[in-house]
Amino acid sequence: MFEIKAKDNMGRVGVLKTKHGNVKTPALMPVIHPRKQAIDVGKYGAEIVITNAYLIYKDEELKQKAIDEGLHKLINFDGPVMTDSGSFQLSVYGDVEITNSEVIEFQELIKTDIGTSLDIPTAPFVDRQKAEDDLQITLNRAKEAVEFKKENGIEMLLNSVVQGSTFPDLREKCARELSKLDADLYPIGAVVPLMESYHYKDLVDVVMNSVRELSDSVPRHLMGAGHPMIFALCVAMGCDLFDSAAYILYAEDDRLLTTRGTYKLENLQEMPCSCEVCTRYTPDDLRAMPKKQRRDLIAQHNLHVSFAELRLIRQAIYEGSLMELVEERCRAHPALLDAVRQLGSYSQDLERYDPRSKKSAFFYTGPESLTRPEVLRHLQKLREMPKKRDLIVLPPTKKPYSKFISGKLGEFYSYGEEHEIDLENSDFMVLDVPFGLIPLEIDEVYPLSQSAAPKIRDVDAIEFLEDFVMEFSEYYDQVLIHSRITNDLDLGLYNKCIDSPDIRYTKDDTRKIKAIADYQFGVGAGEALFSGNINIEKSKKTGKIRHIYDGKVLLVNMRASDAFLVLSKEGAKRLHNRMDYPKNRVVVNKDSEPFALDGKSVFCKFVVDCDDSIRSNDEVLIVNEEDELLAYGKALLGACEIKELQTGQAIKTRKGMGK
Amino acid sequence: MFEIKAKDNMGRVGVLKTKHGNVKTPALMPVIHPRKQAIDVGKYGAEIVITNAYLIYKDEELKQKAIDEGLHKLINFDGPVMTDSGSFQLSVYGDVEITNSEVIEFQELIKTDIGTSLDIPTAPFVDRQKAEDDLQITLNRAKEAVEFKKENGIEMLLNSVVQGSTFPDLREKCARELSKLDADLYPIGAVVPLMESYHYKDLVDVVMNSVRELSDSVPRHLMGAGHPMIFALCVAMGCDLFDSAAYILYAEDDRLLTTRGTYKLENLQEMPCSCEVCTRYTPDDLRAMPKKQRRDLIAQHNLHVSFAELRLIRQAIYEGSLMELVEERCRAHPALLDAVRQLGSYSQDLERYDPRSKKSAFFYTGPESLTRPEVLRHLQKLREMPKKRDLIVLPPTKKPYSKFISGKLGEFYSYGEEHEIDLENSDFMVLDVPFGLIPLEIDEVYPLSQSAAPKIRDVDAIEFLEDFVMEFSEYYDQVLIHSRITNDLDLGLYNKCIDSPDIRYTKDDTRKIKAIADYQFGVGAGEALFSGNINIEKSKKTGKIRHIYDGKVLLVNMRASDAFLVLSKEGAKRLHNRMDYPKNRVVVNKDSEPFALDGKSVFCKFVVDCDDSIRSNDEVLIVNEEDELLAYGKALLGACEIKELQTGQAIKTRKGMGK
Repeated sequence: MFEIKAKDNMGRVGVLKTKHGNVKTPALMPVIHPRKQAIDVGKYGAEIVITNAYLIYKDEELKQKAIDEGLHKLINFDGPVMTDSGSFQLSVYGDVEITNSEVIEFQELIKTDIGTSLDIPTAPFVDRQKAEDDLQITLNRAKEAVEFKKENGIEMLLNSVVQGSTFPDLREKCARELSKLDADLYPIGAVVPLMESYHYKDLVDVVMNSVRELSDSVPRHLMGAGHPMIFALCVAMGCDLFDSAAYILYAEDDRLLTTRGTYKLENLQEMPCSCEVCTRYTPDDLRAMPKKQRRDLIAQHNLHVSFAELRLIRQAIYEGSLMELVEERCRAHPALLDAVRQLGSYSQDLERYDPRSKKSAFFYTGPESLTRPEVLRHLQKLREMPKKRDLIVLPPTKKPYSKFISGKLGEFYSYGEEHEIDLENSDFMVLDVPFGLIPLEIDEVYPLSQSAAPKIRDVDAIEFLEDFVMEFSEYYDQVLIHSRITNDLDLGLYNKCIDSPDIRYTKDDTRKIKAIADYQFGVGAGEALFSGNINIEKSKKTGKIRHIYDGKVLLVNMRASDAFLVLSKEGAKRLHNRMDYPKNRVVVNKDSEPFALDGKSVFCKFVVDCDDSIRSNDEVLIVNEEDELLAYGKALLGACEIKELQTGQAIKTRKGMGK
Repeated sequence: MFEIKAKDNMGRVGVLKTKHGNVKTPALMPVIHPRKQAIDVGKYGAEIVITNAYLIYKDEELKQKAIDEGLHKLINFDGPVMTDSGSFQLSVYGDVEITNSEVIEFQELIKTDIGTSLDIPTAPFVDRQKAEDDLQITLNRAKEAVEFKKENGIEMLLNSVVQGSTFPDLREKCARELSKLDADLYPIGAVVPLMESYHYKDLVDVVMNSVRELSDSVPRHLMGAGHPMIFALCVAMGCDLFDSAAYILYAEDDRLLTTRGTYKLENLQEMPCSCEVCTRYTPDDLRAMPKKQRRDLIAQHNLHVSFAELRLIRQAIYEGSLMELVEERCRAHPALLDAVRQLGSYSQDLERYDPRSKKSAFFYTGPESLTRPEVLRHLQKLREMPKKRDLIVLPPTKKPYSKFISGKLGEFYSYGEEHEIDLENSDFMVLDVPFGLIPLEIDEVYPLSQSAAPKIRDVDAIEFLEDFVMEFSEYYDQVLIHSRITNDLDLGLYNKCIDSPDIRYTKDDTRKIKAIADYQFGVGAGEALFSGNINIEKSKKTGKIRHIYDGKVLLVNMRASDAFLVLSKEGAKRLHNRMDYPKNRVVVNKDSEPFALDGKSVFCKFVVDCDDSIRSNDEVLIVNEEDELLAYGKALLGACEIKELQTGQAIKTRKGMGK
């Protein structure tokens, strides 16, 4: 029903399958008015639309036509159609003339692709008792709807709406309870007032606490979200569907949507985008037009902008630059910047979903970037890595640093216990934004070299560096810090200048490949993989390590783009033999053993367990329940998704051990 | 020849007048290849183009055709055409077969609208001697060209190119020398290598040091700048014209320009914008096309994106949100963020040009926003304002703060000399990002209320608040700081908690209007304007002050949008009588006296002097050389522009004293 095709952060490009065709997500469902629709939204990029079943139900003529000819004919759209249930009317008028099961039945009758139960949209910032009471009704009705669907052989897909007002724990509870039901999609409801009042920070709390408990295998729909300004942010939080009448409501009111906010036509001297409408007409042209013509053109612009933004978001997911897009979009309003800063407090959640390697580089766009999952992940890894006795901290050069660091390294200040420096028993690390300390051995690994930050640093970045170097110094007996750093940062450490020390960094390929293996596969992987007569082959052109052998037996290839080690059969065997279960493992069930042995890719539904630390793009071992090595390959999803999803590939197998 | 229509920061919307029509600036001049042009760039928004006179000169056939039929016919474009002189070829091949006067003569002969002298494009980062030697030749040739033009009655407009490599002082010197000549446009040359290598920070130094010395009345052309990613930044530094072959060169290479950077077609799964090309085709469609068709479509996309960005920039200038756009665009790459941070060091330069009031609110988008001219200007004003004995510092509320602050104000910490607080002898200020301290009396004045910042603060913002409150405390005997602030900030001041003090803010309209007058017109203006039987009339709907009278005589109106005081005739007289020359004055010459008296607007060329502190949108007094009041009105430009420009309006007169 829903398949994830690509992912970045918590955002995903997916395919939602319905009776009336497939929908590429993230998608916007324009709201179609069943009686007075003027715009053919399909022409502007809509693959799915939403309309209101309750409004049709309440209107005798529409109702009859919908029953006789079907909903798709009624609204003249032959792709998938979602219907809402009247909850919105309930929230506005306090009452609706339909029951939960009636509305489910009616939606099925008119051949809705995706129908909705009659939830209670609880407004933000209500008192807790009201939120709890409403939530109970919403949960009961969701349950009732799912049961009704099963009992009556209803075919349409079913929405179960997450409510809970602005109480994070209630949203979480609702999402958790709904996840136990067999619903097909999860809308997140009653967020429109938050968006209308620019409470984007609260929106982040609502969405993140909902999504955290929702199954990864089901699409999430942010109800009523239709402003392209917030699409990227909401996709990064895991939302797959948006719906909105904004395109036409704003147009009625002479307002133009853009990713930078809304423009009133009366304030425009120039048209704000590159769409057909903006290139063909001037604001004066539009102002001089009859109302209806103007409205239709503005609605077209609004749709063009919205669908272009969704394309750009999907592109960003494919290339791994979604957060860069989010961090750019949030400059449209300080309340959106607040939202992104708030999102930073969910870094642990985001980290579980964020791919380990991406096609595009990590760009530092401001203090917000310091809270990104890539940073958190590196610091955690670094804390786990084995340490030498002393630490030598160098200022950044061009990247990869190890290529540009040579000779006598200059003047240093010494901290901690004073003793003769033993270069062999010292870790060499570069101090830089945003990854703090980067060991020279692993500096080519994504994203440590595949990143850029401005040279003029903000104070958050400076404090981040100071704090991290102070924290990390605790691991070492003595720390030598290059004078260019001590001149620059305020390090509250005891310090003593060392007179012209002969400190040099000696490249050691064996040390390097072992460190990369430890960083990538966990501590011990370097020793596990690289024993015997190690033979390192480099690219003649770039000088980069390409293949690593034991004698003539290939152990791993090193990928040029991200310096990841890609296992060979022998490499996989060694890693499997010498690293304990469940490290780097994906466990498949008995039935799929032969397929795995044969090198076939692994689908989520055959996975029975996996190492929690697996992230998408990791190189992994495929084993059976007895931990026998069946194959090895690349994870397409993170551990939590692999465990949860029932459709789609989990691992792209490189080779089966049977081959 | 060039007229400024609207401005924001150092950016301006202008009109460049040529024989072949007017051009709205900022404008992009697509490079037209005289022999193999495939795209009709006019169709995609180009109002002016550029081609290379030297290439035409060197090609017998083209040369003859250009001489016989004119350049416009040759390249099939009937709008204004600029030509380059062969300097680029000179920089690449080291020599050209034409002299400076020959190339000027040839350009005139083929009826170029804007021709260029043969300057020496000195590359960035060369040694100083080379830069100086080259510069001397460039300056000599510019002088020679201007003289040649005068002597030979040449009609075409003339470019004099600013060179000087990456030496700020040489750029400054070159610009200063060129400004003494009668050139019609100032290109800033040899910056392409900086842009190609992402040295945007150095580009800022080059452009800012050039523009600082260039006449404001002449358009500036950033030569070879054609990537829409940097247009907003360069416009904010005062560039009016861009030129580039990027649209077609990138298209040849299957690369798509966007404001977020460049996309290679091979990496695209989705089309990145809302233009016709992006909505009609998929990346797969394009990849499947014959090379030429694909190239033309990508070039069209590139032009659509570029011209849309220029429209958006002009719109941003009209509404006063140019820096918000720049700060958003700079997230496209950390090197651009560096550039914006570097631009912050030119805040004093920018301040002289930045309008005092804008239609749109000030948005804090990150630490960069703290260096914006609006912040600098407020802090300077605040330091000049008269102070009471004690200072009471309050935490922010919704805006305008004074509307939401009432009753007993809570717990305070006391700093400095301890004594009984006299509320009448205390300044009440709110501490907030980005304006530091905001006196409650003036909090409605633009941009103090018309601004927004995220609630989650970055460390730059926190340190800014800490530093400013510490600095400002020096002006007072005792400072009381609200406990919500002291809990939040690390203020290195001696502190003592005051037990439940009865501190209340009492609104006082007279105090308020005097403070606003002092803030707007300078210290003393409040006393100057508001003496006698002061009578304050408020809006029944909003409760805001609208009119202020002495008895029944109107003194000022207070504008609702920015709380600026707009003078009446009596107000103007009082301000003139009681504030010394040259405060708030614009001095016009004898000839224009009758026009001013009659209420006609003041043109730049009639201004003989003005108060250096005048900024656009200031309310000003118009006087003659004997400082007799002739009229009053609104400045459309800043003092430096009013003094320098020879065309266009300087002051929109509200009323002449003769009327």
